[in-house]
Amino acid sequence: MSRSRLGPNRYGKAETHVVRVTRDGGTYHIRDLTVSVAISGDMEAVHLTGDNSAVLTTDTQKNTIFAFAGKYGIESPEAFGLLLARHFVGSQPAIHHAKVSIEEHAWDRITATGHSFARRGGETRTAVVHHDDAATHVVSGLKDLVVLNSADSEFWGYVKDEYTTLPETRDRILATEVTAQWRHASADADWEGSYPEARGHLLAAFAGTYSLSLQQTLYAMGDRLLDGLPGVCEVRLVLPNKHHFTVDLEPFALENDNEIFYAADRPYGLIEGAVVRDGAPDPGPAWS
Amino acid sequence: MSRSRLGPNRYGKAETHVVRVTRDGGTYHIRDLTVSVAISGDMEAVHLTGDNSAVLTTDTQKNTIFAFAGKYGIESPEAFGLLLARHFVGSQPAIHHAKVSIEEHAWDRITATGHSFARRGGETRTAVVHHDDAATHVVSGLKDLVVLNSADSEFWGYVKDEYTTLPETRDRILATEVTAQWRHASADADWEGSYPEARGHLLAAFAGTYSLSLQQTLYAMGDRLLDGLPGVCEVRLVLPNKHHFTVDLEPFALENDNEIFYAADRPYGLIEGAVVRDGAPDPGPAWS
Amino acid sequence: MSRSRLGPNRYGKAETHVVRVTRDGGTYHIRDLTVSVAISGDMEAVHLTGDNSAVLTTDTQKNTIFAFAGKYGIESPEAFGLLLARHFVGSQPAIHHAKVSIEEHAWDRITATGHSFARRGGETRTAVVHHDDAATHVVSGLKDLVVLNSADSEFWGYVKDEYTTLPETRDRILATEVTAQWRHASADADWEGSYPEARGHLLAAFAGTYSLSLQQTLYAMGDRLLDGLPGVCEVRLVLPNKHHFTVDLEPFALENDNEIFYAADRPYGLIEGAVVRDGAPDPGPAWS
Amino acid sequence: MSRSRLGPNRYGKAETHVVRVTRDGGTYHIRDLTVSVAISGDMEAVHLTGDNSAVLTTDTQKNTIFAFAGKYGIESPEAFGLLLARHFVGSQPAIHHAKVSIEEHAWDRITATGHSFARRGGETRTAVVHHDDAATHVVSGLKDLVVLNSADSEFWGYVKDEYTTLPETRDRILATEVTAQWRHASADADWEGSYPEARGHLLAAFAGTYSLSLQQTLYAMGDRLLDGLPGVCEVRLVLPNKHHFTVDLEPFALENDNEIFYAADRPYGLIEGAVVRDGAPDPGPAWS
Repeated sequence: MSRSRLGPNRYGKAETHVVRVTRDGGTYHIRDLTVSVAISGDMEAVHLTGDNSAVLTTDTQKNTIFAFAGKYGIESPEAFGLLLARHFVGSQPAIHHAKVSIEEHAWDRITATGHSFARRGGETRTAVVHHDDAATHVVSGLKDLVVLNSADSEFWGYVKDEYTTLPETRDRILATEVTAQWRHASADADWEGSYPEARGHLLAAFAGTYSLSLQQTLYAMGDRLLDGLPGVCEVRLVLPNKHHFTVDLEPFALENDNEIFYAADRPYGLIEGAVVRDGAPDPGPAWS
Repeated sequence: MSRSRLGPNRYGKAETHVVRVTRDGGTYHIRDLTVSVAISGDMEAVHLTGDNSAVLTTDTQKNTIFAFAGKYGIESPEAFGLLLARHFVGSQPAIHHAKVSIEEHAWDRITATGHSFARRGGETRTAVVHHDDAATHVVSGLKDLVVLNSADSEFWGYVKDEYTTLPETRDRILATEVTAQWRHASADADWEGSYPEARGHLLAAFAGTYSLSLQQTLYAMGDRLLDGLPGVCEVRLVLPNKHHFTVDLEPFALENDNEIFYAADRPYGLIEGAVVRDGAPDPGPAWS
Repeated sequence: MSRSRLGPNRYGKAETHVVRVTRDGGTYHIRDLTVSVAISGDMEAVHLTGDNSAVLTTDTQKNTIFAFAGKYGIESPEAFGLLLARHFVGSQPAIHHAKVSIEEHAWDRITATGHSFARRGGETRTAVVHHDDAATHVVSGLKDLVVLNSADSEFWGYVKDEYTTLPETRDRILATEVTAQWRHASADADWEGSYPEARGHLLAAFAGTYSLSLQQTLYAMGDRLLDGLPGVCEVRLVLPNKHHFTVDLEPFALENDNEIFYAADRPYGLIEGAVVRDGAPDPGPAWS
Repeated sequence: MSRSRLGPNRYGKAETHVVRVTRDGGTYHIRDLTVSVAISGDMEAVHLTGDNSAVLTTDTQKNTIFAFAGKYGIESPEAFGLLLARHFVGSQPAIHHAKVSIEEHAWDRITATGHSFARRGGETRTAVVHHDDAATHVVSGLKDLVVLNSADSEFWGYVKDEYTTLPETRDRILATEVTAQWRHASADADWEGSYPEARGHLLAAFAGTYSLSLQQTLYAMGDRLLDGLPGVCEVRLVLPNKHHFTVDLEPFALENDNEIFYAADRPYGLIEGAVVRDGAPDPGPAWS
């Protein structure tokens, strides 16, 4: 045996897919979540000797998700995550910290009936809750939101070193698949109201920014969201650059005035950044 | 060497991703296609001796896709597929048959500007064109359309053998991910007009059918589409049954009146079927 | 209602993942299969009126898979598929045809114990069985076998039309991801013995063929397999061309004597073809 | 504009797929890497105003990867990552930190020739290098290593609360897909020699541990690796519990003495943990 010790650790049930249907006369409502739990606490014994006496099994965590969906309903991903995180920490002395990560799959009503739905596609709404005795953090977000500007994007003035071959351009397509997360200053907010507002700010800033770099667009998106939602104290964005290369049609005696593009998969630029409100409270483990 | 011969064969460039942007003053339009080509013809020599003199390279096929997007534009996936298929067969004597398969990725306008778009998500529009000297076939379609009925679905009265344990039910969630393809009787139709109509018929029939089995829903969807679009002669549907199992909450002293479901991934029922109009012309290679 | 009728149809349980462990003293053996069933027969009533009286539910099919794994064991994917297909057709008068498709995931022994395994990765073994009163067909195969030749591959002498820009080459990397299926002339063969033989022939022919085109390599692989396995009457191959493009290092004052390659994902050439033994029996539905 | 500031940020080219072939007479060697770069530094201007004068484009980063593969070869993923990370930080004053993440795809020789290979499958080797003026960190690893013990695993003695229904077991299958990363105390080590050793220790510990919980197995694997490789100071493991549920065959009058299992996909337990050598140096950004 080496002289070693247990470092950071956590465990839980991942990707429990729960669907809740409620009836309001002939009108049905649906919430469709994938929930992942990760808890940590006094876990030395289970790692060192296999003593499970402090372990709340991941099967029990899954049962709790279904039971809470029945008992309390699902008002929002954030509220459901808070209920679960507080329960796990509050009910077991060995559990000190709970992280609950949720993805919500949106459905649109098919208007022919009150009980029929089509999955919306497009972006997925996300929520992450961290809870322990010291603090509670709520991070809302979205992912898989693919957006494209076919004008108002340039890229030039960058470093040229001995490995640079990229020509500068004053007109390019700018496209990305937005993953955005926004941290709330408080664990008590209007989760259902703020989500579409946040989404709207991100879209408006992406569309409305005359862009000289994807970094500039990233900052504008985060800043706009902070501007529009006073309860949010930090925004983090991950923006892969979905390259659209202008195809050279000259060999075929055709002009290509930025009309025909080849959409490439790999490799891709990847831009990540945070925009933080002045005076934002400490994030603690919110982003871990 | 065994005494053997070349059987059915084809080759081509798969998944060329072409995006076309057009300007109408300050308003931009976008078409975003993934195009796959498969051609066949006099290909004995290349297989038996590596003599490439009859081979139109897949690289040339890719170039042709980009060139045609520039030269002719993209009016619809079907029209673009027809242009390409006729070109390949018409321009090379060794090519006897061309299949062009297209997926279209839809974009919605972000209203803040005339040049900004968000990818729609939800279903993908598809088109397959087969062309040779004997005939031309056009099959339109969609895939990845996920739909769910939270009422008006039963399942009972099935065979019980020694391996049957499934309880009958008079109330279940019915959910599926629709892949639908509809074959046109003619190679000249209103492709852009008929697509949203076909989609609407499929959704209306899915929602409006009181279902005793997913097969019954499948037939109703195909039949409705044939009824609404006289130019269509056959519909093929692939409907995986996206099982939603009612969670047993009794151990937790909770009722579950068909409100809380576990959405399972695998295994899944898979229902495939065709609905054919009386007097439909022979499909030939349309479905191959 | 349009005047329409039910066309080709089938249904079944897809992707039932069954693992069987057997003990031989302290030595354990494992078979790990994903099984998909598709049956067809007298299915007009269920499609037209939702009458399920001819329907063997997909849940029962799943139960049958698990029960047969316990009752009969798993000698080979082919033998297990035959057992299931014959059972479904034989036990229900309304079922006329059964297709059973199987993927086998291979495990290697971790030698430290008799009960420990690591998943092999590399290719997946496949088997498809079709059975009805008229005939029984067995098709063995593999997929996901990625192979590469770093020498002995050329590509030149192809058609040059107005859209051709590809330069000819006398030295290129040839790489592909092999999907191969071989049809047996009989439903009674040495399934466990012939699989590694077939795999060996495919690899040997891929490696040993000086290639002027991927089609030539395809034919050589199929022909070699027929030559080595007299019980096989037809081989079908699907070979995507995994392009490896030589990177131009001249801008950086470096030579690239076919040493540095960029491995591209999309688009890709896709070559499909069959090699058929003279006098092969009719395939019937074997490839459907 | 809100009062906000730029928080943590980085950017780079992701997933550049480079393959290098070298010849040793008639014997060829191949290295096949996917390389991702993320750099950070003085990036306020580009975010706030779109001024790219401090930006080394991701296209240049890609070119550098190909050029370095040609100029210096690829001795190991770790050595190649170190070359790149040091270059980016050393050559541009605005770049303060570089992270280079590499996945290596292994190939086995097809013995028929000296130039033919088959992709190995199984696990993928990984390496992450962080470099800045303060320190250099190298983390080696692997992912996608699927392992299974068919004996010597129990699970009992855990917490029972009101949501617990899981029965205890003294005999279960334990299976997981190993993601392991090990941090080296120094940036100068025998990368090629230590990788197979580390892999061997992980497999031996997984197989040889009589397991009362997956956490116990995790700790044993990390501890064994530390014990065997003195130059490693910390191991982090991510172990999803690939549940294998015993199928109830009683309804079919069959016994199931832990022979027939249903392998489930979702949800799954997820166990994460670190094992740290006493006196390990501070990880700094090594795990970020």
